[in-house]
Amino acid sequence: MKHPLSARLRALRRQGFRRRNNRPGTPPGLLEPAAGAQDMAALPPARLLLMHYTSEGEVVEQLDPATEAAATAAADAQRVVWLHLQGMPTPQQLQSLKETLGLHPLALEDVLHRGQRAKAESYDAHQFVIVNLVQRGDEAEGDPECGACRVDQVSLFLGRNFVVSINDGASDVFEPVRQRIRANGKIRRLEADYLLYALLDTLVDSGFPLLDALGDELEALEDEILSDANQEARNKLHYAKRELVVMRRAWWPQREVIAALMRDDAPFIRDATRVYLRDCHDHSVVIIDFVETYREMASSLLDVYLSAVSQRMNNVMKALTVVATIFLPLTFITGLYGMNFDTDSRWNMPELHWRYGYLYVLALMLGIVAGMLAYFRRKRWL
Amino acid sequence: MKHPLSARLRALRRQGFRRRNNRPGTPPGLLEPAAGAQDMAALPPARLLLMHYTSEGEVVEQLDPATEAAATAAADAQRVVWLHLQGMPTPQQLQSLKETLGLHPLALEDVLHRGQRAKAESYDAHQFVIVNLVQRGDEAEGDPECGACRVDQVSLFLGRNFVVSINDGASDVFEPVRQRIRANGKIRRLEADYLLYALLDTLVDSGFPLLDALGDELEALEDEILSDANQEARNKLHYAKRELVVMRRAWWPQREVIAALMRDDAPFIRDATRVYLRDCHDHSVVIIDFVETYREMASSLLDVYLSAVSQRMNNVMKALTVVATIFLPLTFITGLYGMNFDTDSRWNMPELHWRYGYLYVLALMLGIVAGMLAYFRRKRWL
Amino acid sequence: MKHPLSARLRALRRQGFRRRNNRPGTPPGLLEPAAGAQDMAALPPARLLLMHYTSEGEVVEQLDPATEAAATAAADAQRVVWLHLQGMPTPQQLQSLKETLGLHPLALEDVLHRGQRAKAESYDAHQFVIVNLVQRGDEAEGDPECGACRVDQVSLFLGRNFVVSINDGASDVFEPVRQRIRANGKIRRLEADYLLYALLDTLVDSGFPLLDALGDELEALEDEILSDANQEARNKLHYAKRELVVMRRAWWPQREVIAALMRDDAPFIRDATRVYLRDCHDHSVVIIDFVETYREMASSLLDVYLSAVSQRMNNVMKALTVVATIFLPLTFITGLYGMNFDTDSRWNMPELHWRYGYLYVLALMLGIVAGMLAYFRRKRWL
Amino acid sequence: MKHPLSARLRALRRQGFRRRNNRPGTPPGLLEPAAGAQDMAALPPARLLLMHYTSEGEVVEQLDPATEAAATAAADAQRVVWLHLQGMPTPQQLQSLKETLGLHPLALEDVLHRGQRAKAESYDAHQFVIVNLVQRGDEAEGDPECGACRVDQVSLFLGRNFVVSINDGASDVFEPVRQRIRANGKIRRLEADYLLYALLDTLVDSGFPLLDALGDELEALEDEILSDANQEARNKLHYAKRELVVMRRAWWPQREVIAALMRDDAPFIRDATRVYLRDCHDHSVVIIDFVETYREMASSLLDVYLSAVSQRMNNVMKALTVVATIFLPLTFITGLYGMNFDTDSRWNMPELHWRYGYLYVLALMLGIVAGMLAYFRRKRWL
Amino acid sequence: MKHPLSARLRALRRQGFRRRNNRPGTPPGLLEPAAGAQDMAALPPARLLLMHYTSEGEVVEQLDPATEAAATAAADAQRVVWLHLQGMPTPQQLQSLKETLGLHPLALEDVLHRGQRAKAESYDAHQFVIVNLVQRGDEAEGDPECGACRVDQVSLFLGRNFVVSINDGASDVFEPVRQRIRANGKIRRLEADYLLYALLDTLVDSGFPLLDALGDELEALEDEILSDANQEARNKLHYAKRELVVMRRAWWPQREVIAALMRDDAPFIRDATRVYLRDCHDHSVVIIDFVETYREMASSLLDVYLSAVSQRMNNVMKALTVVATIFLPLTFITGLYGMNFDTDSRWNMPELHWRYGYLYVLALMLGIVAGMLAYFRRKRWL
Repeated sequence: MKHPLSARLRALRRQGFRRRNNRPGTPPGLLEPAAGAQDMAALPPARLLLMHYTSEGEVVEQLDPATEAAATAAADAQRVVWLHLQGMPTPQQLQSLKETLGLHPLALEDVLHRGQRAKAESYDAHQFVIVNLVQRGDEAEGDPECGACRVDQVSLFLGRNFVVSINDGASDVFEPVRQRIRANGKIRRLEADYLLYALLDTLVDSGFPLLDALGDELEALEDEILSDANQEARNKLHYAKRELVVMRRAWWPQREVIAALMRDDAPFIRDATRVYLRDCHDHSVVIIDFVETYREMASSLLDVYLSAVSQRMNNVMKALTVVATIFLPLTFITGLYGMNFDTDSRWNMPELHWRYGYLYVLALMLGIVAGMLAYFRRKRWL
Repeated sequence: MKHPLSARLRALRRQGFRRRNNRPGTPPGLLEPAAGAQDMAALPPARLLLMHYTSEGEVVEQLDPATEAAATAAADAQRVVWLHLQGMPTPQQLQSLKETLGLHPLALEDVLHRGQRAKAESYDAHQFVIVNLVQRGDEAEGDPECGACRVDQVSLFLGRNFVVSINDGASDVFEPVRQRIRANGKIRRLEADYLLYALLDTLVDSGFPLLDALGDELEALEDEILSDANQEARNKLHYAKRELVVMRRAWWPQREVIAALMRDDAPFIRDATRVYLRDCHDHSVVIIDFVETYREMASSLLDVYLSAVSQRMNNVMKALTVVATIFLPLTFITGLYGMNFDTDSRWNMPELHWRYGYLYVLALMLGIVAGMLAYFRRKRWL
Repeated sequence: MKHPLSARLRALRRQGFRRRNNRPGTPPGLLEPAAGAQDMAALPPARLLLMHYTSEGEVVEQLDPATEAAATAAADAQRVVWLHLQGMPTPQQLQSLKETLGLHPLALEDVLHRGQRAKAESYDAHQFVIVNLVQRGDEAEGDPECGACRVDQVSLFLGRNFVVSINDGASDVFEPVRQRIRANGKIRRLEADYLLYALLDTLVDSGFPLLDALGDELEALEDEILSDANQEARNKLHYAKRELVVMRRAWWPQREVIAALMRDDAPFIRDATRVYLRDCHDHSVVIIDFVETYREMASSLLDVYLSAVSQRMNNVMKALTVVATIFLPLTFITGLYGMNFDTDSRWNMPELHWRYGYLYVLALMLGIVAGMLAYFRRKRWL
Repeated sequence: MKHPLSARLRALRRQGFRRRNNRPGTPPGLLEPAAGAQDMAALPPARLLLMHYTSEGEVVEQLDPATEAAATAAADAQRVVWLHLQGMPTPQQLQSLKETLGLHPLALEDVLHRGQRAKAESYDAHQFVIVNLVQRGDEAEGDPECGACRVDQVSLFLGRNFVVSINDGASDVFEPVRQRIRANGKIRRLEADYLLYALLDTLVDSGFPLLDALGDELEALEDEILSDANQEARNKLHYAKRELVVMRRAWWPQREVIAALMRDDAPFIRDATRVYLRDCHDHSVVIIDFVETYREMASSLLDVYLSAVSQRMNNVMKALTVVATIFLPLTFITGLYGMNFDTDSRWNMPELHWRYGYLYVLALMLGIVAGMLAYFRRKRWL
Repeated sequence: MKHPLSARLRALRRQGFRRRNNRPGTPPGLLEPAAGAQDMAALPPARLLLMHYTSEGEVVEQLDPATEAAATAAADAQRVVWLHLQGMPTPQQLQSLKETLGLHPLALEDVLHRGQRAKAESYDAHQFVIVNLVQRGDEAEGDPECGACRVDQVSLFLGRNFVVSINDGASDVFEPVRQRIRANGKIRRLEADYLLYALLDTLVDSGFPLLDALGDELEALEDEILSDANQEARNKLHYAKRELVVMRRAWWPQREVIAALMRDDAPFIRDATRVYLRDCHDHSVVIIDFVETYREMASSLLDVYLSAVSQRMNNVMKALTVVATIFLPLTFITGLYGMNFDTDSRWNMPELHWRYGYLYVLALMLGIVAGMLAYFRRKRWL
């Protein structure tokens, strides 16, 4: 019962926060695996998917092509070329991207060192965008840490007529876009910047199902805490808050990134595409709005939890006090008539010789209990 | 007793937070019902109300017209045409609005996907405005969740000489505006942008009765908590805070929306109307001011609640301590003289043979009780 | 004892927060009493005071003149005309101001609907300023809710050579300004905008005595809470915090208002007057500074209160624990020797037959008590 | 023991917060003692120190000169004239400053009404600066409220070639600057604005020793609270927080003041001096940084205090529970065998007749105690 | 057990917060050891490392050269000269830097007075940058306060073709940069501003290992607090928060510093270097992001800790209440039948004579216990 939670926590830790980076003092633009990434050596290289199309012609798709194929296709200025890498790319793969498509080494270094903040940077030859993709473990393939947030880094390069997208996680979220291209949608009739928009929009909108799931969880927690504030609920609340921290870190800078792309000085974005980016910007604002709303809800739930705990302690204390206050006097009375004073003296415990002494004592006790109960009822402790 | 509250909470949840949106990866401007909106299929299409007028001529009103009728009327540049849709429009209705009045598909998509943030967007052919309308359930028709906040989305389109308003909720708040038009008010002598202002003003001002009701509730809660801090009051406070969260989400962006319309670059707003929008802007600022004030009040009430709970625990503990501190020593004394030491030895419990031994013990106990009471009184525990 | 406080709370509620406004959907600039203002019908109309003067000539004062008199006086461009209305004006009075002095209906509507936020608005014919005047009840005439804050709305109109001031409360704070005019002070030699400054300065400075009184109250509370943290002090703190909320709402926008008047684009303010407004602006900043400082003090006092309550609970618990820990073992021992084992067997309770058995038990108990006391002393529970 | 603290609190109150100001409605620029300043009448007038010098010539110093002497010296444009007033100046002194040196009445009014916020204001004839000087009582002469913060107001006027400084407190902090002038330091070779900088720098840097002292206090408090969280420590923390509030109010606006002087539009500051002001600005930023850091530390200490208190209560409760849980069952058993059932029936209390009954009971009790202790040890309550 | 922690705290105090500065009133640019720096006298002077190179020629390295050697090398405009000082420089060393390389005395004064805020300042002859370097004690040489944060100040001067770096701490972090120069890396082919970037990048990136270590600590603390919220964990949390305060103070201004260098008006930075600084800026933003995330985590952990403490108290109270509620009635019953009423009267305690009286009482007691247990189970106290 406690296991899935702590597994979730472990997954959160491994996935949500850490950043891979070089040792301080290494030169910039070095395409080498970062420190603490030894485990990456065991991973397979990223899979490549190449897709290129013109508005009239056919769509060409290639699985695991050489990167030169992308460069060749991009040489035809009429074509829109989309090269997608799924999985953590090897330094060799990045090196070949640099050589064939002219991607900037500083940008490629950021691809290698995951855990970057979302950002948009203009280079002379291309626009570079990093967006963080948050996903629940169970959405990916058979993840043992189901339910925990995972942050993948998606790097996007927009050139004159090509887009390179690198998703260093395991699951490919761009399949719907591919289907729209194959189905000869609007996307086919427009340029590479619209393709970039379509990818960004997919990434931003991927936040909504997560927020829905988290909203459901928080409401289930609300029910649980309002009815029975136990420690497990508190731990769940703590996990939810940590997930919100991860989401917030991932999604706050997204808004600025899209705003930067909307501005006039982003050279590879055409004006016609800016209307669509505005829509995408609105979505990213709504997402932040939800995260802040859920944070507020979580913090209000903590208040409810804490007050429920102290209320419950109150009830426990009342129960104790009622029991003690009733039985301590009674026990005193029984003790009184259990004393062994020499009853030969008529001043010593004459009640013991009374005919109805016992009944009198029982009546006295009953009176005390009745009085106490009335007193507690008036004080609303019962 | 607990039922109305949790019904209110359920209503809050269903109405206040959720957003309907497409699956990530669907193309923009797609006029299809959003995911999670299957229940919408059962709903009837929106009812249409068409109203058009010139300053001198008659007011024409049509119930459930074809959208082409609106386009035809709008062809006369002297007329002001107002097409109102009450209820969630079907994709078909939106499609026909797009075709006859030239509304932009991205804007219409936002109409379909409710739960948008308030926003103002300029398109070439029209100004697009979304405002969120918060309403109490009991104000609508026979709602079982009386007392809970409900957020409806009102979308407004302002063209050269037409206004299209779409309220996807159940209750129509624009009737007073219609009466002013029929009554040949100032609104008849001015252009479509003034009509937009009149609708916005109605929407913004609809917040005041809600805030008044919430203020009354908070003051009732304040009385309740100051006199008796029970758990029900705490839960009510939690609900009020959640409602404030909903209101804040709905109303914060309203201010920016109206500020955006006031700026010079909103092309469909005439300068003469800006003075009125300034008034409307002031109202939206006052509304936010109230929401923030109430939030502060609610958080101060929580402090009072928590300190009352711990104060009460203090009192319970004092009662227990007083009772235990009085009776434990007395019981000890009775136990002492209840021991069975062999009283043949003159060193063993000689008090038992004293003539007034019993009286002496009673006097001793009375003395202890009196001393304790004096001590507690001095410590102000009684 | 509890009465004055709750009277104060009731007064706070009635006076401090509520806003009178029209039903949503009513047209702008409508000079009709607002909803919820039925009780206003019983109130007498506002009293008028007209004062006009030139730098050399005499000061003319008129009580309850016709508003036409003000317009006539204002026709002489050399004169400065000051029309003051004390009390809630009737719609008829506002209508006549609109007609004779050309005041804007939107501005006059704001006069009617009290509870506005402080604001400065430029109209073509005049500058319009709203400032909120906070006053303690006991400063007004024989108010039964002495001690509670009351918020009156003061509306100021500055035209070319006239000022109209409307104070909808009961007490007139402008008498000192009138005396300065009569005394032929500097104010006589300057224009209408300096008169406006003089009125604003009076309104802003009226905050200082209130803040002094509140500071005294908070310091008295501090003494009370540091010496004895009782529930009454906590309630007083709650009231003080609520008053600070009212003051903050009233005074925060004041600063922006005066800053707006200082800016170059306020057409009716002469440059020479801006130096004086800067002084007034400084005062309003100091006032906000004090409010924030007092809020911080109040929240720090709440911390002290809460920790005092839990400290006190600690002491109560310690007392209980000490008593129980001493007497429970003693009572056990007495119980032990009160058992009725058959003492014929030499293994059964031989102590009962010891010669000094009783003394030995008493000594044992004394030892236990001494040991316990030493233990508690070492643990610093005593 | 409690006395020095409350003396410190009293001193804080009298010195740190209050502001002297005129009654609302008095005209601006009135050089009269403010309301509530009656006690000032008894004070001696401020002492005057006049110093003037050229870079080559001698330094002339005069104690208690006529203000005309300053004006005469200032007539020589080659001289830098510094007139310092120590102590609260009388209205007469301010009047003579106004007449001889042309200081602006609004500025002089601010000198008279202490408790101003730090500010920099440009007048035609001079630059006016107010800075608040925080000092510990023990640094001043024989103050009975040693250890409490005191806020003095230092007003600085910078003209073409003169500086007037007015410190309304008791202790003169400018002596080191005077020594630098006498020692023919760099200050002699530069203009009046550099002298102003030197004074400002002295005032700003006077914060560092205070912050050091406060830091020491907070660290002593941290030790105290971490080892033994008693109520006295909590009160000291409260005092420290109040002092931080006073310091923050005094020092926050300082930074803006120096930033304003650094800007190009401060007419009396030469560009060469701006480099030095930048240094001074950095210091004021560091000071604010420290204040914020200490505030955070104080609030973290409060958390530690509160959790220590509840931890201690926990321990007390555990002790009580352990004692009660061990002795209540034992006492019950002794009570059981203290019952007086007629042992003639063989069903009634046969244990009393057992040969080793007593030993069996003692063993039973020992077993219960051992079991309980083991249980508590496993639950880590011991 | 408690020792390492308080040693860590002591180290934090000595290293993290304090600032050395002159007495208020000393002239600016004075190169004298600051007050409170007497202990510095005992320290050895800083060690000098001179390195100069051209892109083609050899790299010249000199240990402990005369500062004139640096000036001589810098006279060759083709060379890039890097003079590094490790350790606190003596005033004499700074004086010689001032004379030979023309460094500004105000900047050098900031070098001497450690505890500065990070800042970037342009002087005519050079760019001046201060960055704070946070390091864990155990990373330095055999520090007894292992684990505690230490803040060293690194001052950087960038001239036309030279860089002077002064690290007043004990450990040299720039060795990797030196190796890159020796290895004829890119750094050799670029100018002095790129060298400055390389140093800044090393300093900024040195934050990542610390953040990783702190993250590990916080997660260990999370485990500890979720499983057993003891006081030691709370103290560790307090230390972690204090370290975060130190880090925040050190790292927040870093971002602004690098942003200032990126701006166009930093005269010694070439445009080509700005791309690299942008990368460095991103890293500094990520670092702040982590600090804020950890602060949030720490504060959420405190909430968990506090609720765990009160939950535990709850459990203790429940245990006490259960025991007392079961045994107090039982003891009362035994007391009842231990009374000594004269059983000759048939109304007095007839139960004592019943044949199965004892069994009946035992059964009664068993019934009470069973009932109580059932009641507690239903209330979920067991």
